[in-house]
Amino acid sequence: MNETTYPSEPPLYDRVARVVRGMIDEGSLRPGQRVPSLRSMSRQLKVSITTVLEAYSRLEDEGMIRARPQSGYFVTQRAAVRIPAPRRSRSQRAPRRVKVGDAVHAIFSLANRDDVVTLGIANPSPELLPTRTLSRLVRNISGRSSRRAVDYCFPPGDPLLRREIAIRSSGIEGSVSPDDMVITSGATEALMTSLTAVAGAGDVIAVESPAYFMLLQMIESLGMLALEIATDTATGMCVDDLHRAVHQIDVKAVISNANFHNPTGSLMPDEEKRRMVRILAERDIPLIEDDIYGDLYFGEQRPRTLKSFDTSGNVLLCSSFSKTVAPGYRVGWVLPGKYQDKVMEKKQLVSSATASLPQMTMAEFLRSGGYDRNLTALRRHYAEQVRQMRGAVAEYFPDGTRVSEPFGGFVLWVELPAGTDSWELFNRAMEQRISITPGMLFSSSGKYRNFVRLSAGQPWSPRLEEAVRAVGRLVADVQ
Amino acid sequence: MNETTYPSEPPLYDRVARVVRGMIDEGSLRPGQRVPSLRSMSRQLKVSITTVLEAYSRLEDEGMIRARPQSGYFVTQRAAVRIPAPRRSRSQRAPRRVKVGDAVHAIFSLANRDDVVTLGIANPSPELLPTRTLSRLVRNISGRSSRRAVDYCFPPGDPLLRREIAIRSSGIEGSVSPDDMVITSGATEALMTSLTAVAGAGDVIAVESPAYFMLLQMIESLGMLALEIATDTATGMCVDDLHRAVHQIDVKAVISNANFHNPTGSLMPDEEKRRMVRILAERDIPLIEDDIYGDLYFGEQRPRTLKSFDTSGNVLLCSSFSKTVAPGYRVGWVLPGKYQDKVMEKKQLVSSATASLPQMTMAEFLRSGGYDRNLTALRRHYAEQVRQMRGAVAEYFPDGTRVSEPFGGFVLWVELPAGTDSWELFNRAMEQRISITPGMLFSSSGKYRNFVRLSAGQPWSPRLEEAVRAVGRLVADVQ
Repeated sequence: MNETTYPSEPPLYDRVARVVRGMIDEGSLRPGQRVPSLRSMSRQLKVSITTVLEAYSRLEDEGMIRARPQSGYFVTQRAAVRIPAPRRSRSQRAPRRVKVGDAVHAIFSLANRDDVVTLGIANPSPELLPTRTLSRLVRNISGRSSRRAVDYCFPPGDPLLRREIAIRSSGIEGSVSPDDMVITSGATEALMTSLTAVAGAGDVIAVESPAYFMLLQMIESLGMLALEIATDTATGMCVDDLHRAVHQIDVKAVISNANFHNPTGSLMPDEEKRRMVRILAERDIPLIEDDIYGDLYFGEQRPRTLKSFDTSGNVLLCSSFSKTVAPGYRVGWVLPGKYQDKVMEKKQLVSSATASLPQMTMAEFLRSGGYDRNLTALRRHYAEQVRQMRGAVAEYFPDGTRVSEPFGGFVLWVELPAGTDSWELFNRAMEQRISITPGMLFSSSGKYRNFVRLSAGQPWSPRLEEAVRAVGRLVADVQ
Repeated sequence: MNETTYPSEPPLYDRVARVVRGMIDEGSLRPGQRVPSLRSMSRQLKVSITTVLEAYSRLEDEGMIRARPQSGYFVTQRAAVRIPAPRRSRSQRAPRRVKVGDAVHAIFSLANRDDVVTLGIANPSPELLPTRTLSRLVRNISGRSSRRAVDYCFPPGDPLLRREIAIRSSGIEGSVSPDDMVITSGATEALMTSLTAVAGAGDVIAVESPAYFMLLQMIESLGMLALEIATDTATGMCVDDLHRAVHQIDVKAVISNANFHNPTGSLMPDEEKRRMVRILAERDIPLIEDDIYGDLYFGEQRPRTLKSFDTSGNVLLCSSFSKTVAPGYRVGWVLPGKYQDKVMEKKQLVSSATASLPQMTMAEFLRSGGYDRNLTALRRHYAEQVRQMRGAVAEYFPDGTRVSEPFGGFVLWVELPAGTDSWELFNRAMEQRISITPGMLFSSSGKYRNFVRLSAGQPWSPRLEEAVRAVGRLVADVQ
């Protein structure tokens, strides 16, 4: 493991930068005020002047402070972002057929193009991923186990990988055994097999509103109906509304992204998680949990999963390494609870098996401790990138814009002034080779037309800043 | 490329062995007769005595000839297998709901166990696959393109891989462009996305009878109905019967495995392929072609695909490298014709993307010529293994047994004497740690109860011979 590439501790200058950010956030340093001099900061924090200079340069790159010749550093307007979050959404009275497929198709067709600034897809940038370590592991494993690497690895999947995931999960979920798990080709396949294991055409599926568009598309494709439940950008799905809904309507399954919801970044409080799990267990309504962002917390500790409150096997937890290690590996998993056999059968049916070498490599990456080391760095990066992008939206988007303040993950949910047409915005941005995700994709009813989702998966750069600025300018044109 | 490992020309002793086999097949050498002496054969074929000895030793290992001390080599009874093929199946009058899931699940749960002799799953043995070459390519690519290897490779998939497949396909299908293709996670996902792209719950799908059980399971899982069409173990699906069926019943799609049908090994003649494609195009009924065994021909040349007769974009060709290169890579593809957009959308939905590194490695394996070299050796191995297993079935199974004579691939379809219960046989064989596939899995109506499919994917060995013998002995017990 290369400690330089994936340090478990932040460098010194990073700590200095945090102190300054903290002062700005608390209001002890306000926009326009002078930042403590290099010398005084160096004395105060007992670090070298070079370290403070490095920290200030980085804060300057971030747009938090600006140097004035002969006068020192000053806090910028951008630094103190005070922008409200989007309002809580409303629950639907009745389930609806879904129709978002065509728009999603248009966006994905732009995903892999180098000439497009991709704010539209929730991809981690390869720069942030442990590519060199993985490459080394792949080479070792491929040499050592060349036969296993080409042979089928049938469901439930590689035993070593399942063991490693079980060890990690046991810290989060309570006791998890490798036999409680089915490895899938990414979280997409995990969600798809879970959904088809518990529901069929014509069934009603309750989801957050807004909901991850791929979930809506799955529901559409399977001939199911979506029932959108009100969701708060801080606390997630409204459990009271869900409770009412399952009382009134024959809801066949619930999908929830309780930890760092896509697109709002909300985090459901533990008490609400516990209530939700209990309410659904009482009615034997399966709860599919999408936890792919769970490890990407900005706070002090990893939030608990819905699954960790499950005592009846009613929760199917879906996750993957696509946002944290290697999207291209396509390694995900389900903890299907009492639906284990059904999920296994669906998995065999949709793709027979998951690719062997990525599973073997991921097992070794987990075993060697590489995953945890990388995660520490990654969380810091994502938190910083989200902060940067929020700042840029606050600076460049018109008055009346609201933006979510995510607790983890790396996407922002932006509410534009009423009347803004985000589909038109999407088209205009594409002319400038910038991709964004228009809000109506996140609902079955075409709501959220004046919303967009922006992804902050890439390291902040002048190119990104310019892209956000360009989109901000376009907003006025499409109102 | 290591020429020693994957020679494009068979070794000398192999040619000698072929000559002897030819004499036996033509009847100029009969069971019990003496094989020409080492010396006379050496003179006749202008090869060394050592080479002839090597050839005879191998023929002895195969059970074709047997040495008698002081007397030379003699042809065994096994050598002249004269066993009839199973009779042509019958078409169903009406479509049926399918229910094979549970049995398939039972068989797959045994697939990866080392202590079981696996005659039940159509797996190529890793010993026959180019594991060392692939391992070298993986190491190169993973070092050179470490970022691309971890990043998403969104549908339609890796451009280099699509180009290489297009180049190869163009020899077989006529003109194919990389843009005509969607890469999938193996042929299973190719078939699943194709099927869901053209049909929905309640629709009738015409298939061969017997049909690959995974197809039936897909149809079951999607709430569709199967209509089984009579199939000949030599010439494949009966096009006359299919013609009548689409006239009488609203058939929504047809799935055909025209080249080396699983499980019968049949090969549809070109004229029938042409007719079938025309009949379905006239009615705008999509034809899904499963061509995964197409490259594994035992004859002189690669058979044409149904797709090669398609002028209207009505054929969706599905294939993969799982039977020829690396099952564990999960690399397959669809040439969806006019259903391209729909298949793309389904692919995004079921797994977002296919794993990147296996795609990149496969592209390089094709580009470097490794694929074609490996195939030459592989075809010879499979032909030999199928021949061995047919011989063993003829020798050890009771009178009244019939066995298919496949034109390619590596599975045998065995018709046991009427009244034999192959489900019971499956259970009894499992007690002896041998897996076979019971025939009723290959029909929606529970037909083929007195059939089994045996896979000859592994190099012939005393362990395999003993397993076939053991199954043969059990047949008498379950009649």
